[in-house]
Amino acid sequence: MLYIIGLGLGDEKDITMRGLEAVKSCKKVYMEAYTSLLSFGLESHGLSNLEKLYGKTITLADREMVEEKAHHILEEALHSHVAFLVVGDPFGATTHTDLVVRAKKMGIHVQIVHNASVMNAIGICGLQLYRYGETVSIPFFTDSWRPDSFYEKIHSNRTMGLHTLCLLDIRVKEPTLESLARGRKAYEPPRYMTINTAIEQLLEVVQARQQPAYTEDTRCVGFARLGSEDQMIVAGTMKQLQSVDFGAPLHCLVITGNTHPLEEEMLEFYRCST
Amino acid sequence: MLYIIGLGLGDEKDITMRGLEAVKSCKKVYMEAYTSLLSFGLESHGLSNLEKLYGKTITLADREMVEEKAHHILEEALHSHVAFLVVGDPFGATTHTDLVVRAKKMGIHVQIVHNASVMNAIGICGLQLYRYGETVSIPFFTDSWRPDSFYEKIHSNRTMGLHTLCLLDIRVKEPTLESLARGRKAYEPPRYMTINTAIEQLLEVVQARQQPAYTEDTRCVGFARLGSEDQMIVAGTMKQLQSVDFGAPLHCLVITGNTHPLEEEMLEFYRCST
Repeated sequence: MLYIIGLGLGDEKDITMRGLEAVKSCKKVYMEAYTSLLSFGLESHGLSNLEKLYGKTITLADREMVEEKAHHILEEALHSHVAFLVVGDPFGATTHTDLVVRAKKMGIHVQIVHNASVMNAIGICGLQLYRYGETVSIPFFTDSWRPDSFYEKIHSNRTMGLHTLCLLDIRVKEPTLESLARGRKAYEPPRYMTINTAIEQLLEVVQARQQPAYTEDTRCVGFARLGSEDQMIVAGTMKQLQSVDFGAPLHCLVITGNTHPLEEEMLEFYRCST
Repeated sequence: MLYIIGLGLGDEKDITMRGLEAVKSCKKVYMEAYTSLLSFGLESHGLSNLEKLYGKTITLADREMVEEKAHHILEEALHSHVAFLVVGDPFGATTHTDLVVRAKKMGIHVQIVHNASVMNAIGICGLQLYRYGETVSIPFFTDSWRPDSFYEKIHSNRTMGLHTLCLLDIRVKEPTLESLARGRKAYEPPRYMTINTAIEQLLEVVQARQQPAYTEDTRCVGFARLGSEDQMIVAGTMKQLQSVDFGAPLHCLVITGNTHPLEEEMLEFYRCST
């Protein structure tokens, strides 16, 4: 049996009772380490909070490990209960479809334990979830690589009056160029895109366009550490949000479409004070 | 303090530890009764499972009560801890923005406890959440009222290759026509739209259109009791799904857009066997 268990967005207390029961029944517990573990305090305190709560040792599984050693994890799941923990929901912003497909093909029984993900928790700002269009991802621009396919999607969404959730780039365990050349494993320090950088890139991309999909006066909502006790949510124009210090990651950004009066009332509570 | 606590989609075990702690700290506990309580077994066993788990009496709050007596609930929250429990996530398919706005205006501290909602749990079928367009609602057609504004939205989504989540109508505590005329309160029995009815209406609406957005051969995914232990997920054409008996409510339906190979592989596991 393979349990894929969403941990929610905040800390160890955000697991559901169903999830906790499942973890406790498992012989082996893995935890994905390729989105962010920041909110779970794992960078500072190791896995101790979670391990204490579960009474289990947790093996961190980064992307490399899941790709290279999935077979090993799945072999274990053939013969005993194995838990694979993921931040948010198992099928939220980062998906684990590949692992599920492989498990099912091997005849392993897969149980999903759902939880909140950024895809629904953004509802807290008051913009209705059913008024969102396609979600976009904004990658870090480099000198030579500035992909802007997100622009057309934002354009379509705004043309239809829909809100757009922008997921911001996370670079964890990226091999250094040098290590790639030499065939040794060495990694860049982790990088998490801030709302400020995202807006800078968004405004750069729109500059050359006729009939721009948005301008620096377009209203947005910035979210930092969504679902955590110290979450920060600020509504304002792109220009306003660009000068807000949102603090530690993770950040994400919503570009508003047309808003209803009740949506307006909620946004008012989060309005940028500058 | 007003806690608005998502219960998730399955049963009493789907509350998070954070949510459970919050409920236990509250003097008064309300539970919304205007989406569906079916999955929590409340129609058959009353509130006992939840009440046992929480060690609290729960007051069911239907839409009427929330609208008429919100002030009373909020008055209590001014002076003590009050919990308002909702199925799914507080800002999922059914939103509680209005209650939050009123509470905040009264200076009440509002805490949200997130959970899974249908808006992210549909990810389980393998169709990527970021490839969904605008969500649509399909209302029960009557002889004289056949609103089809969902059609244009599905059309836009499919033109862009995006999937569409269709939320199906729920009629709970609808006053009877007779009672409206006589000014007495009497209610219709609850009605929950099935996938079969939704497809029937979808196909009726498309008939008169040129360049139809979908046909009876368009692939869909039907979900019944999503997130419950007896959930049912079937992928197939509209025609195929129309003859599937999905059993008890709640149902929802996804109309696919363009699919990626990994999405295809996952759908394969749910493929209609007829």
